[in-house]
Amino acid sequence: MNDVVDSGVKPGFCIRCGASVKLAIPKGDNRLRRICIDCDFIHYENPKNVVGCLLEWQGKVLLCKRAIEPRYGFWTLPAGFMENQESTIEGAAREAYEEATAQSDDLRLFSVYNLPHISQVYMMFYGTLKDGFARANEETLAVDLFHQSDIPWSELAFPVVTDTLTRYFETNEQNKKGVYCADILSRPGEPLQIVRHRD
Amino acid sequence: MNDVVDSGVKPGFCIRCGASVKLAIPKGDNRLRRICIDCDFIHYENPKNVVGCLLEWQGKVLLCKRAIEPRYGFWTLPAGFMENQESTIEGAAREAYEEATAQSDDLRLFSVYNLPHISQVYMMFYGTLKDGFARANEETLAVDLFHQSDIPWSELAFPVVTDTLTRYFETNEQNKKGVYCADILSRPGEPLQIVRHRD
Repeated sequence: MNDVVDSGVKPGFCIRCGASVKLAIPKGDNRLRRICIDCDFIHYENPKNVVGCLLEWQGKVLLCKRAIEPRYGFWTLPAGFMENQESTIEGAAREAYEEATAQSDDLRLFSVYNLPHISQVYMMFYGTLKDGFARANEETLAVDLFHQSDIPWSELAFPVVTDTLTRYFETNEQNKKGVYCADILSRPGEPLQIVRHRD
Repeated sequence: MNDVVDSGVKPGFCIRCGASVKLAIPKGDNRLRRICIDCDFIHYENPKNVVGCLLEWQGKVLLCKRAIEPRYGFWTLPAGFMENQESTIEGAAREAYEEATAQSDDLRLFSVYNLPHISQVYMMFYGTLKDGFARANEETLAVDLFHQSDIPWSELAFPVVTDTLTRYFETNEQNKKGVYCADILSRPGEPLQIVRHRD
């Protein structure tokens, strides 16, 4: 019943005809939706996917220092909102290029994180940083390659980044990569609250 | 540049202020977006997730006969659009209940399908049909449990359903369940066009 909280903006008008919208439960539905009072168009809102990747080169992992809010100045794995008409893997590769001028090889799905409190799903891939090349651009203050022992754990931007890196190094040690699923319930800067799904 | 094709409706007005929108590339972006000519609000559009599940009971799989378009009268696995403020697994369980009055146990992620031509991502889970109980409701003409040998292959609603079932029985035989990723490029009724990702 509260699926309209998360849009970031209160949609007050119909995208189709410009009339006002009301909050109501459509026939055959069980949730409040924004419905046009004039043309009856229903404005469904759904979770957004964030796709990203962990790229490795000679035992080091690529991180980017964010040049944009939220979490300006913190380190992150390249990731961003998936676009229409692309696949998750294409989106992850695109984000690596947009945020770190990095090309990726052999991307495979590594983790799926639900962030229900902000209606997002993260899908993180792992692969190889092509030619070991990356360069900062307008979305990043810096890019760098980090050995496991040098990861700036206290300066990571998001719980998803912390957990993806943690899990990646664990699975390296175990020499066992599957797809890992979890719910993350905490916000950046808060103590990590995570519910790991069964393997 | 063509990420605005898929919304199902041409948004002509701003959801925030009701003024007209124009198609333009925002500063720092590289795609056409619908931007309000008055308040400059940018209307991002992103892929939607469809979550569903394959529920087994005593060696049989639960299928539902669709009572709604598209693919009215065809058989499907319970699945539908993920809602805000839920996890993928919660969404899959909800759909099983809404479409088949079915409760599920031990859901685990089974497959991730990209359908870039319609800007959707399917995430299918597998698990147990609780107490073997399911019942048709307003979204379904019938529900039934099928042995592998009885699956109505020619009457399945969507390529994702066909491929999830195929892959499920394969992995049963191999006694090996991982998470399986693929791009599906064909539409219902067309010959299956699928690009399987590397395991």
